[in-house]
Amino acid sequence: MAEVVKVALDAMGGDNAPVETVKGAVDAVNLRDNIIVYLVGTEEALNTELAKYSYPKERIVPVAATEIIETGEPPVMAIRKKKDSSIVVGMKLVHDGTCDAFVSAGSSGAILVGGQFIVGRIKGVERPPLAPLFPTTKGASILIDCGANVDARPDHLLQFAKMGSVYMENIMDIKSPRVAILNIGAEEEKGNALVKETYPLLKNCPDINFIGSIEARDLPTGAADVVVCEAFAGNIALKMYEGVGLTMIKEIKAGLMSSLRGKIGGLLIKPSLKGVLKKFDVSEYGGAPLLGLNGLVVKTHGSSKHKEITNSIVQCIAFKENKINEKIQDRVCLKDA
Amino acid sequence: MAEVVKVALDAMGGDNAPVETVKGAVDAVNLRDNIIVYLVGTEEALNTELAKYSYPKERIVPVAATEIIETGEPPVMAIRKKKDSSIVVGMKLVHDGTCDAFVSAGSSGAILVGGQFIVGRIKGVERPPLAPLFPTTKGASILIDCGANVDARPDHLLQFAKMGSVYMENIMDIKSPRVAILNIGAEEEKGNALVKETYPLLKNCPDINFIGSIEARDLPTGAADVVVCEAFAGNIALKMYEGVGLTMIKEIKAGLMSSLRGKIGGLLIKPSLKGVLKKFDVSEYGGAPLLGLNGLVVKTHGSSKHKEITNSIVQCIAFKENKINEKIQDRVCLKDA
Repeated sequence: MAEVVKVALDAMGGDNAPVETVKGAVDAVNLRDNIIVYLVGTEEALNTELAKYSYPKERIVPVAATEIIETGEPPVMAIRKKKDSSIVVGMKLVHDGTCDAFVSAGSSGAILVGGQFIVGRIKGVERPPLAPLFPTTKGASILIDCGANVDARPDHLLQFAKMGSVYMENIMDIKSPRVAILNIGAEEEKGNALVKETYPLLKNCPDINFIGSIEARDLPTGAADVVVCEAFAGNIALKMYEGVGLTMIKEIKAGLMSSLRGKIGGLLIKPSLKGVLKKFDVSEYGGAPLLGLNGLVVKTHGSSKHKEITNSIVQCIAFKENKINEKIQDRVCLKDA
Repeated sequence: MAEVVKVALDAMGGDNAPVETVKGAVDAVNLRDNIIVYLVGTEEALNTELAKYSYPKERIVPVAATEIIETGEPPVMAIRKKKDSSIVVGMKLVHDGTCDAFVSAGSSGAILVGGQFIVGRIKGVERPPLAPLFPTTKGASILIDCGANVDARPDHLLQFAKMGSVYMENIMDIKSPRVAILNIGAEEEKGNALVKETYPLLKNCPDINFIGSIEARDLPTGAADVVVCEAFAGNIALKMYEGVGLTMIKEIKAGLMSSLRGKIGGLLIKPSLKGVLKKFDVSEYGGAPLLGLNGLVVKTHGSSKHKEITNSIVQCIAFKENKINEKIQDRVCLKDA
């Protein structure tokens, strides 16, 4: 039998908690029999929501937490003060070895801070990057870092390149993933100071398959498997991707609804349009892992519905089975030493 | 009669030169009778292309330039060495007062360098930003800076905010344009060092209508009229916009063509889809002005077809008529002193 993966889920995090988070947990344990979810939240929320479903009781463990960290709270202070919040309690379950992973749709800042200070970094990893997969016409690529470490240094980006390569090789089964640095032109002399300093480090690193610079416009076509960047730039690229996609879809739909001809045409194209939208739906890939920690922390969208929560829980299986953290430690740390 | 605007056009710049550039010039003078185009390029190219069209001969002035700066060339070196290139010759026409503006689809780097060193900055402007309009559901906003000055300082961004406000007020007729700084979160404490230092400068500036931070995902909905950013981030946001748009349209079209039902539906929705695509077509707004120079320099896409060239030439009229440079000088420089 497959090894059991224990995932702590922040039942209180995100815009649709606890309704969608608890449904996501129930779906996950009903879908896969090698998952146990430690559901962390207020007793009342857990009791009310869990009562709605039938599921194998032994595979959802309610864990009480009386506090909730809100999105607007200053993260460092929130993690320090709210010791009984669902994020702190859930992360401690990973830190003390009870769980393999922690999943949350809550405050990004608190998750990033808690990941470093409660779960802790793998020895040798300097900065744990947030590394979401994004959809491309070829499948998916990883954008690393997307928000954990603004104003990073060149050696941090080199570690990101290695961690991203380990992830794409082992989770997405891509042999010798193509690594590129996000830049404002294809030529080697282009870029800001950080890119110019990082470029030769990546070029001379024997551990990765570095293919040079990538412009943002080439991200959606999958021109690289691992896109390395500083968090500020990565966050902008990712949110632009989401924003343009959502806006265009909305406008196309509105355009169709504005005439009878469009409405009829819209009905006819619905199946093929749906296929395209599914392809570009970021929630298909679950949440963004925070790599380089002693355990896995996954941040899902604040707007996550149950499907994305389920996907985020399920993705923890592959992470554990493929021993990603052991491989990151090996690739990033031992070879750097 | 309206004042005549003299525009130097780089006939040799861009992927589709000289065919599309010359056609763009011919269309511009046929469209508007207060434009004279100084068409800069090799004699052979100009003769061959101009022979194809009928147009008022006195309003296209061929100017010989024997050299061409290629996209891959290091910009500073190219501007220095190729004194008889279409970019250098065209910019000199602005510098010596023969022309009001210079338009090129050629090497971005060379245009940015030439703009500063040949055309020259308005006294008091520290860095001339590249400031394209981008389409939104509400109309258009300006993204400033998008590639002229990587690693800018907070006081540069303050100047960008003022220049962008002047542009949107006068060219786009937006009263008290909303200025926001591109950031990775809406809260004031978010951002990298540059954003954190720039934020209070913008907040305390009485000349602009500062509304705070804007996340990349809110750009397409027009949540701000003037989006201020450092060039590296701006370039990524802009190219992501273009890349996601193009890729989604391509995928939607391919999806429609994959079934008979999709094909029929596709025919029906064509008019409304076209409307949406036109709305999101960056070429509708012509090229990106490089603001803060003694004269106007407009960079259009390397892939520009004649329509974008024409739009870019025509936009120079509004720039001159509205005395944008005088207003920039007044707003940015005198009030700073």
